[in-house]
Amino acid sequence: MTQNPLDIVRWNDQGLIPVIAQEKGTGQILMMAWMNREALAQTLEKREAVYWSRSRGRLWHKGESSGHVQVVHDIRLDCDYDALLLSVEQKGGIACHTGRHHCFFNQYRDGQWVDVDPVLKDPDAIYGGGKSHE
Amino acid sequence: MTQNPLDIVRWNDQGLIPVIAQEKGTGQILMMAWMNREALAQTLEKREAVYWSRSRGRLWHKGESSGHVQVVHDIRLDCDYDALLLSVEQKGGIACHTGRHHCFFNQYRDGQWVDVDPVLKDPDAIYGGGKSHE
Repeated sequence: MTQNPLDIVRWNDQGLIPVIAQEKGTGQILMMAWMNREALAQTLEKREAVYWSRSRGRLWHKGESSGHVQVVHDIRLDCDYDALLLSVEQKGGIACHTGRHHCFFNQYRDGQWVDVDPVLKDPDAIYGGGKSHE
Repeated sequence: MTQNPLDIVRWNDQGLIPVIAQEKGTGQILMMAWMNREALAQTLEKREAVYWSRSRGRLWHKGESSGHVQVVHDIRLDCDYDALLLSVEQKGGIACHTGRHHCFFNQYRDGQWVDVDPVLKDPDAIYGGGKSHE
C-alpha cells in the first residue's frame, strides 16, 4: 500500500512547513507562507493554495476575501521533505496584501532595504478597508 | 542615521529567517535554507550565500567543501520582513546535496511524491564520500 503523501512531509515543531509560491510562466516568487497538514490536504484537493495563517491561527484559503486565488499547477517537496514549492497562477495579478504583484519588494541596496516595486491596487480597495491581510 | 538592515529583519524564535535561493537567469528555485544574523551579515559582505545549518548548528558557507558556491546578485526581503529571496549564480550547476541541480525534485503526482529530476553527479564524488551534506 502506498504511503500517505502527508506522512512523508517533515512538519516542524509547530506542525508547519514553509511554502514558496512561484508564478507559473514568469517564474517570479510571489510569496512565502506556511501550511499545516490540513492546509496541504485542502490544497491537494482544491488545487488552490490554502495556507495556515500564523497571525490569525486559522486556515487561510488565499483569495477568500480578495478574490486573488492561487490556482496550483505543480507541487514539489524538497530533498529533506521540509519545504514545499508551488507553481501557481495568481488570479488578479496581486499576491501581496500591500497590493503589489509579489511580496519581495524590499531590495538590498547600499546598506538599506529599498522598496522597488509598485503598489498596483490600494489595499483598502482590495479588502474593503481596515484589513491589512485578507 | 540609517537603521541597520539586520535590525529590520524579523528573526524567528530561534533567531532565524527562511531564505529562498533562486537561480539568476533561469528563475528556477534551487533550495530553501535558513540564516541567522551572522549568516546574513557574512552574505552581505562576501556576496556569496552563507546559511545557518540547523542540523550541524553552525554557519555554513554554501560550497565550502563542494565548491558549489552561490554568488549573490540580488537580495530581497518580503512585506513582513520575515522571509528572504536571493538571486544567485550556482557554481558547478548543482545546489542539492543529492547531486541534483535543485532540491525540489519530488513532484506530487496521483497521490504520491515522484522523483522527477536527474542526479547530475554522485554525492560521493562531490563530497569525497560519506558526507550527505557539505
